[in-house]
Amino acid sequence: MARVVECVPNFSEGRRKEVIEAIVEPFRVAPEVTLLDYAPDADHNRTVVTVAGDPENVLAAVFEAIRTAASLIDMEAHTGEHPRMGATDVVPFVPIREITMTECVDLARRLGSRVGEELGIPVFLYEAAATRPERTNLADIRRGQYEGWKTKINDPDWRPDFGPSALHPSAGATVVGARMPLVAFNVNLGTSDMRIANSIARAVRHIGGGLRFVKALGIEMQDRGIVQVSMNLTNYTKTPIYRVMEMIRAEARRYGVPIISSEIIGLTPAESLFDVAAYYLQLEGFSSSNVLENRMTE
Amino acid sequence: MARVVECVPNFSEGRRKEVIEAIVEPFRVAPEVTLLDYAPDADHNRTVVTVAGDPENVLAAVFEAIRTAASLIDMEAHTGEHPRMGATDVVPFVPIREITMTECVDLARRLGSRVGEELGIPVFLYEAAATRPERTNLADIRRGQYEGWKTKINDPDWRPDFGPSALHPSAGATVVGARMPLVAFNVNLGTSDMRIANSIARAVRHIGGGLRFVKALGIEMQDRGIVQVSMNLTNYTKTPIYRVMEMIRAEARRYGVPIISSEIIGLTPAESLFDVAAYYLQLEGFSSSNVLENRMTE
Repeated sequence: MARVVECVPNFSEGRRKEVIEAIVEPFRVAPEVTLLDYAPDADHNRTVVTVAGDPENVLAAVFEAIRTAASLIDMEAHTGEHPRMGATDVVPFVPIREITMTECVDLARRLGSRVGEELGIPVFLYEAAATRPERTNLADIRRGQYEGWKTKINDPDWRPDFGPSALHPSAGATVVGARMPLVAFNVNLGTSDMRIANSIARAVRHIGGGLRFVKALGIEMQDRGIVQVSMNLTNYTKTPIYRVMEMIRAEARRYGVPIISSEIIGLTPAESLFDVAAYYLQLEGFSSSNVLENRMTE
Repeated sequence: MARVVECVPNFSEGRRKEVIEAIVEPFRVAPEVTLLDYAPDADHNRTVVTVAGDPENVLAAVFEAIRTAASLIDMEAHTGEHPRMGATDVVPFVPIREITMTECVDLARRLGSRVGEELGIPVFLYEAAATRPERTNLADIRRGQYEGWKTKINDPDWRPDFGPSALHPSAGATVVGARMPLVAFNVNLGTSDMRIANSIARAVRHIGGGLRFVKALGIEMQDRGIVQVSMNLTNYTKTPIYRVMEMIRAEARRYGVPIISSEIIGLTPAESLFDVAAYYLQLEGFSSSNVLENRMTE
């Protein structure tokens, strides 16, 4: 486990099992690549795949998966609830270990270039790989979806970063980029009052004047009779988990509401938890090189 | 980084650089083994080596290091402040990843058997590998040191677990075993009053009625004008770091003394810090399989 990049490609197929298996096959056979998860969603007709491993091998495998998706998925026949614009809809590279964001941007560009030239699919770069500010957000790029993109691609402002200025006849277009790992962090509050969850969510989230890398919503947990502040932390190195926790604790105090528990959904980098431990233990001079497993890869 | 055992052999040479280098050489060349640290101490005339990696390869490399130490160190000529009874004095195996304590005991037995039979050095098993209760503690085995052991080994109660019932003429005897990772955890208090540090150390440590797997001492930090509770946590899975921290916090409160900071000296397993994060975040349903890097090895 030397250098590790994570990649989370989203494919527009969540129903035909044999197609999904064919798409993930390159990740199963690639050396030094681990297929961590793939979650087909029939309603969305979409599968989110999570892989991690050696950057060059991940790059090669994801290209093969995109090629397979282009040959087996016909966007003309695709229906599903989730917005999408291509057979391979979006491909973020995520730095995990001994790899910088700049190197992830380079991977995104190299993948985009190959997908554009070899597969004839228009590619747009997003997030940290974006070539202009209005292409940073995926939602802005994807607006109009596959159907709308048939005309949107003729707009000079929406010339692709790689590949032809026309949708691929069956595979549509693909968005490729680089971003930080997301941490899905939820905090449960000892109240059933949704107004309190919403008010705290507004206080902590960036859009409401809160922390820079927090997206937050109030959610009702009806079966438990409580409410939750449900969050995505989009850069745990700059907005660490403990800071979010303590800000929620401070906000909850004004309502006399206790924090019951929290949860991390899915995967989080080890480093994000070391930060939490170092804060609450008030550790001096601690770095991840104090962690035995980390020292083994240095 | 699949299965990982740590091994911390102590050799009775801390002065002759070329001897120390020859002893650690097997760890440098072994495949899937990382030489994490080696710290020669001239006053103790002793070198503590820390290695980790594939269990079979660590076993093979440590045997070679013991063979080298036996050929280059003469205990008849050895002087130093630290108690010792052999050229290779003590060899603990420590479970880190995907390996049980039982498997570490098995490694200790296999190493002991080879050292006894092939090198003719008497071997005593200690800690989790001990064959009787009075051999659990290293200090009990080592009492009398190399010089005293010339007669102690004739005592029927001290027949070695492996090898001859006589000291090796130059290499003495060796203690081999298995134990949990040690976490060296110190807490700094906002006072210069040593009585408070000693009192808190007595309260938290096992011997004083405190936590089962805590050894603690009060220490004066003269340059900073503060005192410290200096600890070894001998089983972080049963006495987790956060519990020690919170117990010290509670004890310090009775003196109106704040915790200034804490420190972890050397290496600690990632798992020991995940426990801390999970406690302070009140995480529900968290396991180390939520950690991205861990999932890559499953």
